[in-house]
Amino acid sequence: MALSVEKTSSGREYKVKDLSQADFGRLELDLAEVEMPGLMACRTEFGPSQPFKGARISGSLHMTIQTAVLIETLTALGAEVRWCSCNIFSTQDHAAAAIARDSAAVFAWKGETLEEYWWCTERCLDWGAGGGPDLIVDDGGDATLLIHEGVKAEEEFEKSGKVPDPESTDNPEFKIVLTIIRDGLKTDAHKYRKMKERLVGVSEETTTGVKRLYQMQESGTLLFPAINVNDSVTKSKFDNLYGCRHSLPDGLMRATDVMIAGKVAVVCGYGDVGKGCAAALKQAGARVIVTEIDPICALQALMEGIQILTLEDVVSEADIFVTTTGNKDIIMVDHMRKMKNNAIVCNIGHFDNEIDMNGLETYPGVKRITIKPQTDRWVFPETKTGIIVLAEGRLMNLGCATGHPSFVMSCSFTNQV
Amino acid sequence: MALSVEKTSSGREYKVKDLSQADFGRLELDLAEVEMPGLMACRTEFGPSQPFKGARISGSLHMTIQTAVLIETLTALGAEVRWCSCNIFSTQDHAAAAIARDSAAVFAWKGETLEEYWWCTERCLDWGAGGGPDLIVDDGGDATLLIHEGVKAEEEFEKSGKVPDPESTDNPEFKIVLTIIRDGLKTDAHKYRKMKERLVGVSEETTTGVKRLYQMQESGTLLFPAINVNDSVTKSKFDNLYGCRHSLPDGLMRATDVMIAGKVAVVCGYGDVGKGCAAALKQAGARVIVTEIDPICALQALMEGIQILTLEDVVSEADIFVTTTGNKDIIMVDHMRKMKNNAIVCNIGHFDNEIDMNGLETYPGVKRITIKPQTDRWVFPETKTGIIVLAEGRLMNLGCATGHPSFVMSCSFTNQV
Amino acid sequence: MALSVEKTSSGREYKVKDLSQADFGRLELDLAEVEMPGLMACRTEFGPSQPFKGARISGSLHMTIQTAVLIETLTALGAEVRWCSCNIFSTQDHAAAAIARDSAAVFAWKGETLEEYWWCTERCLDWGAGGGPDLIVDDGGDATLLIHEGVKAEEEFEKSGKVPDPESTDNPEFKIVLTIIRDGLKTDAHKYRKMKERLVGVSEETTTGVKRLYQMQESGTLLFPAINVNDSVTKSKFDNLYGCRHSLPDGLMRATDVMIAGKVAVVCGYGDVGKGCAAALKQAGARVIVTEIDPICALQALMEGIQILTLEDVVSEADIFVTTTGNKDIIMVDHMRKMKNNAIVCNIGHFDNEIDMNGLETYPGVKRITIKPQTDRWVFPETKTGIIVLAEGRLMNLGCATGHPSFVMSCSFTNQV
Amino acid sequence: MALSVEKTSSGREYKVKDLSQADFGRLELDLAEVEMPGLMACRTEFGPSQPFKGARISGSLHMTIQTAVLIETLTALGAEVRWCSCNIFSTQDHAAAAIARDSAAVFAWKGETLEEYWWCTERCLDWGAGGGPDLIVDDGGDATLLIHEGVKAEEEFEKSGKVPDPESTDNPEFKIVLTIIRDGLKTDAHKYRKMKERLVGVSEETTTGVKRLYQMQESGTLLFPAINVNDSVTKSKFDNLYGCRHSLPDGLMRATDVMIAGKVAVVCGYGDVGKGCAAALKQAGARVIVTEIDPICALQALMEGIQILTLEDVVSEADIFVTTTGNKDIIMVDHMRKMKNNAIVCNIGHFDNEIDMNGLETYPGVKRITIKPQTDRWVFPETKTGIIVLAEGRLMNLGCATGHPSFVMSCSFTNQV
Repeated sequence: MALSVEKTSSGREYKVKDLSQADFGRLELDLAEVEMPGLMACRTEFGPSQPFKGARISGSLHMTIQTAVLIETLTALGAEVRWCSCNIFSTQDHAAAAIARDSAAVFAWKGETLEEYWWCTERCLDWGAGGGPDLIVDDGGDATLLIHEGVKAEEEFEKSGKVPDPESTDNPEFKIVLTIIRDGLKTDAHKYRKMKERLVGVSEETTTGVKRLYQMQESGTLLFPAINVNDSVTKSKFDNLYGCRHSLPDGLMRATDVMIAGKVAVVCGYGDVGKGCAAALKQAGARVIVTEIDPICALQALMEGIQILTLEDVVSEADIFVTTTGNKDIIMVDHMRKMKNNAIVCNIGHFDNEIDMNGLETYPGVKRITIKPQTDRWVFPETKTGIIVLAEGRLMNLGCATGHPSFVMSCSFTNQV
Repeated sequence: MALSVEKTSSGREYKVKDLSQADFGRLELDLAEVEMPGLMACRTEFGPSQPFKGARISGSLHMTIQTAVLIETLTALGAEVRWCSCNIFSTQDHAAAAIARDSAAVFAWKGETLEEYWWCTERCLDWGAGGGPDLIVDDGGDATLLIHEGVKAEEEFEKSGKVPDPESTDNPEFKIVLTIIRDGLKTDAHKYRKMKERLVGVSEETTTGVKRLYQMQESGTLLFPAINVNDSVTKSKFDNLYGCRHSLPDGLMRATDVMIAGKVAVVCGYGDVGKGCAAALKQAGARVIVTEIDPICALQALMEGIQILTLEDVVSEADIFVTTTGNKDIIMVDHMRKMKNNAIVCNIGHFDNEIDMNGLETYPGVKRITIKPQTDRWVFPETKTGIIVLAEGRLMNLGCATGHPSFVMSCSFTNQV
Repeated sequence: MALSVEKTSSGREYKVKDLSQADFGRLELDLAEVEMPGLMACRTEFGPSQPFKGARISGSLHMTIQTAVLIETLTALGAEVRWCSCNIFSTQDHAAAAIARDSAAVFAWKGETLEEYWWCTERCLDWGAGGGPDLIVDDGGDATLLIHEGVKAEEEFEKSGKVPDPESTDNPEFKIVLTIIRDGLKTDAHKYRKMKERLVGVSEETTTGVKRLYQMQESGTLLFPAINVNDSVTKSKFDNLYGCRHSLPDGLMRATDVMIAGKVAVVCGYGDVGKGCAAALKQAGARVIVTEIDPICALQALMEGIQILTLEDVVSEADIFVTTTGNKDIIMVDHMRKMKNNAIVCNIGHFDNEIDMNGLETYPGVKRITIKPQTDRWVFPETKTGIIVLAEGRLMNLGCATGHPSFVMSCSFTNQV
Repeated sequence: MALSVEKTSSGREYKVKDLSQADFGRLELDLAEVEMPGLMACRTEFGPSQPFKGARISGSLHMTIQTAVLIETLTALGAEVRWCSCNIFSTQDHAAAAIARDSAAVFAWKGETLEEYWWCTERCLDWGAGGGPDLIVDDGGDATLLIHEGVKAEEEFEKSGKVPDPESTDNPEFKIVLTIIRDGLKTDAHKYRKMKERLVGVSEETTTGVKRLYQMQESGTLLFPAINVNDSVTKSKFDNLYGCRHSLPDGLMRATDVMIAGKVAVVCGYGDVGKGCAAALKQAGARVIVTEIDPICALQALMEGIQILTLEDVVSEADIFVTTTGNKDIIMVDHMRKMKNNAIVCNIGHFDNEIDMNGLETYPGVKRITIKPQTDRWVFPETKTGIIVLAEGRLMNLGCATGHPSFVMSCSFTNQV
């Protein structure tokens, strides 16, 4: 897509796939409101007093129907809102269209490139001359990261005149971040510092984003207050456990139409997300095997009758593999080569590096066959057998299905608010 | 759609939504073959001996990816095949396209009108001058019905010169059947009798279709041998129990994105289909209530900790209603009026008269809002509350999802073969 | 125990462990009546018309509290009743005492020797000079067997003067049967033939007993009509599936206090009994593995996420082994030698030859340590590791617990009546 | 029983039901050791260094087979041990016998009176002239309570010469405590203060005991350090959740032989204990209803498909009632009067005041019929219907079964050690 900001007739900025889907989005928003009693109660209780009157809120969080109800709750409480997604595949285009037309500035569409993704993140934080947002709603910490890297670069530039060098990193995504910051320095060398000044704080939604924040706090580099929404009971238990229990099988079925009953499914990790995934697969009739290094979590799996093995033990026997660990390099290309024909590999942890997509993409002679968007069959040259990778190794429940259901998100979003 | 038969470059007849989807259909067919070991084993074992060499097979059965694997198994065993769907919503257009292009004559698309449906059924039985098919693969008995009604009408016409009168019935669908037969009499008054002569037999897939056949057998009106595939173990247990356990939640989630956990769900009927539905809903975290008149089935539900009530008892409290009985008039418009706002109403039994759609459509002042295809919100004028009806009261697992998974259909189709 | 018949003050014959437990038995009978609505409804509905007036009924069926309610239902309907147990461990002595004191002739106690067992069976059939019973309620077919063997021996004796030779068989139990018949011939060479004349029929409760009857019917040796109670829905589904689901964990816990959660449990056979056992173990948190040769049953297990293996595959890894097959020689001493220390081995199928007790008892150097009645640890000399065998390889749910609960037995006994 | 201390041939004090059961206890101890790998690993790892060398440990904790393995682990690590039970019904007499004969001073038997109970507690703390224990292992806090009340009384006595007055309280149990302390003052007015001086600390096992300790800490009255073992993961999740999931159905079946499937069961409270109970009942086929005032816990129940109601709503419909709250006055006599005939009422929370036993016992005209020890039927005069109360309202899993299985206790006891 051409990267230029568009405007509604009322002058609000946006960039979405297709504004004409706004009516469809509105219909689903109407349904979702009934399923999200927590947020609706916030509107009723706090709407009259307009607690967010005049506040600017930037959100970097999957642009779904449920998030749309969150955004309209924030605006109902008086806020001005700009939004982007925190995942290149997670936007529901009809939700983005409805919000763009009716309520807030949105920069998000399903299937962004990484360059587009960071352009959207930049737009979301760009409140024009008067600095940035008062509050950030973050999910995974990318908006927070951009500001921190930006401030660091501006201070270095002021001190030594040096600008960030995208070639200084091997990480393709971080190259893009550095490029954006370098180009920004040319027009305004105080942009991110102005943002930092104005910013009251950030609320962070995910385990991984929270870890990043704690690391920054410990090293003394955290620039503004942060609220850990992830560890509230309504998030950690409800969103992770019940949400994933719902959306894992949903994503599997939409992407592959596979029958889960009778399959052997490997869940990597038995934290709250892993517990939800294992429960869902077990209940659907799969035989579940868990890989887990934490002894307490492993013992809990055992108490539920679940076998604990290493990935190596089962890699050539299982039909479905799900990563839930929040750590990187869980399923490597070397594992994938040994899998059965049409084994399904997917990730429901927040980041996209649990599955070694880089190793897969660069494997000599590997062939990628796209069955449909977010569902690819990768065929290895030696064996001619293929594996099916969902959502390019990113969050499969958002890439292949519609993420957590409204009710669950009502619980965690009500906390965010 | 304009109702005219089209032809492939090789001269085979077809009528599908979009032949250009054939490549996509072929990719999913490749995946499904791996999931359907029974059918593939038939190809390997019986392919060389070509047992169906020269046989003409007409099929009236949901035109899905799984059925496509069945069709290509029949052709691999030597048969010539013509196909239509047995449900106006159940066709997967990419499956139909792949078969039409590569393997057999197909007349089916998602979202047929009733007129189109019966036109397709007629085409499927129309083998040209030399009479009809040698074998029929039926699902619900509509192809069988058409031939029986046709033969009856031809005999009456020969005896008394009388032609069927579409106005003699109140049933809108039967009006269409009579019209087709009446119109057919004008061109060939022996068509259905020639079919009957040639026909070796029919295999029937559903409980309801089988009941119809037994009734005809008892009354002495059954014109040709029939094989009851429904009551084989692989069908009754696997297709009904495990298939519905898989596809009910799949259909609910695709159609409404609703969180099943925490909901109150009513399953009408606790036969094999009802058992599968209740198990799926319970495992997804719903509180399930069953309505059932058979005391043994009711006791079985009780032994699983499921509450037994009448529909009247729970109509205003439940969130999800599923009919599985195979009987008609289970959920009436009077029930629907009393339901909660956004209660979901759907049917997974074979026929479309378990839910009183006629009563709903003709309710004074009722308003229908189509959220997306197969998902309608019906708003009652008195209360302004609405209910969500899936697949217009027809088979929701085919209308809203992709039906039973390949593995299950492999079990029952292998029997059919 | 000294084998002599005792008499109540009213002159009714009996032989039980301790008549003074009758009060305790009566209290539990009172409770059980509330749990057995089917039998109590029979008393209410048919009591006044006394359909069994004057009928002599002999029962060979586990002498439990539930059976006591059955017996008193039969007497309430007018019958005279004599009873023995069909298993040497299954009698509940307080139940036997209450019945002996109040209602019927009982010959049964927990922990009979095989000689005592067959003496009891003989007493149960012994109605004095006037021949035998009008009806037999059989469970496993031992009463039926005794009459058939008796008749055969009497006919042979009349023809050739030959008497049965206990030494003609290796089976220790059949030796006893032949001895009883031989000794009986000396006093009355028409006893069993008189019984056969009088007998109207037998109702049989178990799969195994029914199989015996069908074999006799086929070979033309069945001497009187038999009713197959086993295959009625209320028996096969309820008693086998739900009953074993209840009583397997009950027996395991009473005998060993073992925690089932986290254990690996092997269920041999996945018929209705096996399904109930597997469900119970799975729900208690065990990882269940099934051994099964029937492909349909194996596929059903797979659909529930249960692993199918051979016994050899898991013999050294599993913690609990349960046989449910109804066949003999399932777990041999050679398997038992390879098991983990303190692995639990038990049988819930009807007969006592699923586990190779003979092989175990005669294994050179094996040592038996009785933890408590029905719970033995057998230590192998080579490894010094031991396995725990419940109820000496006989029905563990009767030997170690109290059998099926009243509610389940109400369902199948109501059918018997 | 006559309350006099006995001595083994080696001079160790004890008071148990029957020392001749020591062999049977030893056999079950041998089995339990295999099931308690954590404790056995402690013996192997720490045995050689004798960390408890010379330490005096007094324990007030259910005197079961599992506790016996704990005690022998403590002695294996060098400790001298005296023990009593913390519940009048929870002692397993064969376990007590084995320990008394072989390892430690034990004062405990199943079915103590309250006077006997506190006499045992006193003996357990009585290390003769040289003061008290170095460490206390407490469960429910009764040993801790006795010392605190003793110290308070001694200080008051020293100050004002006043002795405690048993008549100053209505609580019958506290009357006994005051009597013991009053009588103790006569012989040694420094006894409890000497104990306090010597005592290094107490480890407490239960939620309720921990609450008592926190209250004392807040009010500044806690006299010595306390370790909260209850809130360690291995205790709160494993012991409460998995332990109760195991032992609730075990206790129900041993006490009543009732079939759980098909019953309506009410679980009061949905904390970890309640979650374990609800899971067990649901899996056994009951329909479970939860009463809960905490909204998060209630929402968790809802997510598992469990109905939330008040006790009043279901009191006359349910078959089984279990209290798990840790609070008092949950099921009152007024509830019990309205229950169905033979409804089962039991408590699995730590204290015995969740069920209003006092109200029941003093209800005018109520009649108690003891079916067997720990299983009483109470008949109300107006209705002649009765309810079945287990373990006199005390911990039913210890009163009616054998408590938590060894494996679970291994987890929490290993922590204690």
